[in-house]
Amino acid sequence: MGRQLKLGAVLMGVGGPGQHDVWRHPEIPGDASVDIRWYIARARQAEDALFDLVFIVDSQFITPDSPPHYLNRLEPLTLLSAVAVHTTHIGLVGTLTTSYNSPFNLARRLASLDLISGGRAGWNVVATGDGGTAANYSRDEHYDYPSRYGRALESVQVCQGLWNSYEEDAFPRDPETGVFVDPSKQHRLDHVGEHFHVRGPLNIVRSPQGQPVIFQAGDSDEGRDLGAAVGEGIFTHAPTVEQGVAFARDLRSRARAKGRNPDEIVIMPGISPVIADTDEEARAIEADARLNKDFAKTLAQFGRPFGWHDFSRYDLDAPFPELGDLGADSFRTQADRIKQVARDEGLTLRQTVHRFSTATPAPFVGTPTTVADRIQEWFEAGALDGLNIHVTVPSDFARFTDEVLPILRDRGVVRSAYEATTLRGNLGLPIPRNTHAVARERRSHLIGA
Amino acid sequence: MGRQLKLGAVLMGVGGPGQHDVWRHPEIPGDASVDIRWYIARARQAEDALFDLVFIVDSQFITPDSPPHYLNRLEPLTLLSAVAVHTTHIGLVGTLTTSYNSPFNLARRLASLDLISGGRAGWNVVATGDGGTAANYSRDEHYDYPSRYGRALESVQVCQGLWNSYEEDAFPRDPETGVFVDPSKQHRLDHVGEHFHVRGPLNIVRSPQGQPVIFQAGDSDEGRDLGAAVGEGIFTHAPTVEQGVAFARDLRSRARAKGRNPDEIVIMPGISPVIADTDEEARAIEADARLNKDFAKTLAQFGRPFGWHDFSRYDLDAPFPELGDLGADSFRTQADRIKQVARDEGLTLRQTVHRFSTATPAPFVGTPTTVADRIQEWFEAGALDGLNIHVTVPSDFARFTDEVLPILRDRGVVRSAYEATTLRGNLGLPIPRNTHAVARERRSHLIGA
Ligand SMILES: Cc1cc2nc3c(=O)[nH]c(=O)nc-3n(C[C@H](O)[C@H](O)[C@H](O)COP(=O)(O)O)c2cc1C
Ligand SMILES: Cc1cc2nc3c(=O)[nH]c(=O)nc-3n(C[C@H](O)[C@H](O)[C@H](O)COP(=O)(O)O)c2cc1C
Repeated sequence: MGRQLKLGAVLMGVGGPGQHDVWRHPEIPGDASVDIRWYIARARQAEDALFDLVFIVDSQFITPDSPPHYLNRLEPLTLLSAVAVHTTHIGLVGTLTTSYNSPFNLARRLASLDLISGGRAGWNVVATGDGGTAANYSRDEHYDYPSRYGRALESVQVCQGLWNSYEEDAFPRDPETGVFVDPSKQHRLDHVGEHFHVRGPLNIVRSPQGQPVIFQAGDSDEGRDLGAAVGEGIFTHAPTVEQGVAFARDLRSRARAKGRNPDEIVIMPGISPVIADTDEEARAIEADARLNKDFAKTLAQFGRPFGWHDFSRYDLDAPFPELGDLGADSFRTQADRIKQVARDEGLTLRQTVHRFSTATPAPFVGTPTTVADRIQEWFEAGALDGLNIHVTVPSDFARFTDEVLPILRDRGVVRSAYEATTLRGNLGLPIPRNTHAVARERRSHLIGA
Repeated sequence: MGRQLKLGAVLMGVGGPGQHDVWRHPEIPGDASVDIRWYIARARQAEDALFDLVFIVDSQFITPDSPPHYLNRLEPLTLLSAVAVHTTHIGLVGTLTTSYNSPFNLARRLASLDLISGGRAGWNVVATGDGGTAANYSRDEHYDYPSRYGRALESVQVCQGLWNSYEEDAFPRDPETGVFVDPSKQHRLDHVGEHFHVRGPLNIVRSPQGQPVIFQAGDSDEGRDLGAAVGEGIFTHAPTVEQGVAFARDLRSRARAKGRNPDEIVIMPGISPVIADTDEEARAIEADARLNKDFAKTLAQFGRPFGWHDFSRYDLDAPFPELGDLGADSFRTQADRIKQVARDEGLTLRQTVHRFSTATPAPFVGTPTTVADRIQEWFEAGALDGLNIHVTVPSDFARFTDEVLPILRDRGVVRSAYEATTLRGNLGLPIPRNTHAVARERRSHLIGA
């Protein structure tokens, strides 16, 4: 049996982008996004189904038009820390931006979650697309692309350096000799880089998985390079199996070029499967949800990649407007893709909005068997190593865990029991050695030779 | 029955300043400071004894000489969030520095803990004394006193402004009308100050206690002014009842001068009571602990208020050395007090170190009745509104909760049951109204008149 499909649950509370009406569902309490019991219950539902991880997305800039879940939600690491002590095996991946946090604080909070959870922490490294965020952090302008991604890469490197502050055996804690710490095994970092200088040491030891797992979700050229450089898990969107395969190939070849082992990267696109008793019924549910969306809200949300541009000022049925380089410094990749498709296919604004407001890639709509078949096809084609399931309505999620997963389990595609109690252990990722301990071994080897 | 004595438990894991040997105690696991189960167990022990709060101190700069608990510990808010979901009534007060955090992130993380705990969060606002911290945050120098305390005050004001981002009824969440949020009840802050500019709104609602309780622990003139301006709880050290009374009077009069109600401030000095079956035995235990301390470690720790100055280079039995203005920009108040006492009393270095390395104010040493009597005396004299008990060895803490508290309870000095499930409710502090809602009421009153 080869590598199995990995599973993530994206907990979206009262509903994220494209889910403006989810909160009206009777199963969803109005305050789900700020109720810790809701997150704990969903995480346990995912853990009972042997998921690898829960994933918490994040942002720090809102307007009254933001999706319901964004308007009012818990901060990812306080949230995950509470979930950690009510779960035992599932990974806990939080989004934290490197544009508006200092690496010392990032390293410390993530290391703390990693210890609290017994080695289950992951960090989704983002550089923040919403330019408006700057004004919440005493900055006149958002960082441009090169600074954003320069800071992101350097932040991860600083954190990983700080996570080596103590060698594994730095604390003899010997009541006989009275030695609590071995000072030679506590290390300063003394990092001096383009964006940060950080002395260290960090005041916290490594966890059972060594250090938190690095996830990445940027899609631009710069974003892919960051993922290739440091990403151990990659979150992405894959509209078709071909695009998924192309993305995975591109990312792995960039990683290989950087001297990394491309097999040590787990690529996980997000999906919202629609499951029903017949394929027709599932397709009807999906079409209905898509067409009944509040168009004004969809249009407002559509403006986000263009720096929350107000599209209600244009004629909906005229050709897609000329926007210049609008969006170049917020979500450039997405903005450029929308502009190009609209131009190439001669779409109107209305058509463009419809095209890009579907959160559900079509192939994952159908009976449990249909959905399981598609997942297995994509997996075997190399379009994905895992899947991120967007979780809102608990009974919808239960159809996936109770009806789709057993089929995949029978086929050996997903696990029948957890392999480990750490996130690295379950994802099949190596535990990074402490760099100082490695250097010490090398030195004593040289002396011995 | 008047106001009752409030109780805090300072969780010190393997031992803080002056507690270099605590980790050798058989009841203390070597990794207590990074074991979340240890904190949860201690918090429950305090909650069973009807304590108001647990208090987590913090710092971000270490050397190999730092106290054991400082070398390797969990980050306060991830820690408290995990404790929140295993407790129900006790307050959760975390230390966060305003020198190396942005107010938007502070506001958000604290509000998140406040919701997760159902209204039990508190923030110990510190400005950071250790100058070495700067090098962990890409700064060449630590902030000077005016900037530090300027940032601290402005940070609290920004946070309190952000905590008003949503009025209580901002989310109609009406499935009939489809209205999730009322945009007129979401408010930007648009703060432009000397140190920060912050637009808002914050993406999180108020908790059952309105907003987190502000604690403060600075002792310099600037520190006291900050406490008087915004502190609702004050952590301090009171070596004698007279000094306690003088401090409380000074602080309340500063608060009154700023237009605040001085009764809405809870002053809580820290103590480490030593309890035994006889007063003699307790005094012997205390003396023994004091004299048997590892002097080299005590000396290293003694250097902290002077910017970790190395005192081992001086003759221990010569007069206390001339230090110029060493310490002026780290822990100035403490450094100045030490210099002055040494000079006034003509002490040697060794004598000075002994004088200032006692963590236990003498009066709280004795039988349970002696300790209860002293606490009541100090309370009735106005030297304190509450006490912060330093918790390390669980059975020592149990002597306090099981033998001292019942005496105070019989006398009506401490509570017999929690009054509330929020920290404000138990401390007897008012719930701040949402400022926008107040302004709205005032407007509609004017229109109605
Ligand atoms: C699956 C996925 C999840 C993402 N989650 C977040 C998130 O939680 N917070 C965030 O600020 N950005 C998130 N992003 C955005 C990316 O980090 C990135 O900013 C965005 O894709 C724009 O890409 P670019 O900045 O490389 O152009 C996510 C992107 C993807 C594909
Ligand atoms: C009881 C008490 C607890 C304190 N806890 C902390 C703490 O956890 N972290 C910290 O950086 N400073 C802490 N301080 C230090 C103060 O915030 C302040 O920096 C220090 O007393 C020096 O005072 P000054 O800066 O006003 O001179 C504490 C002080 C007292 C009295």
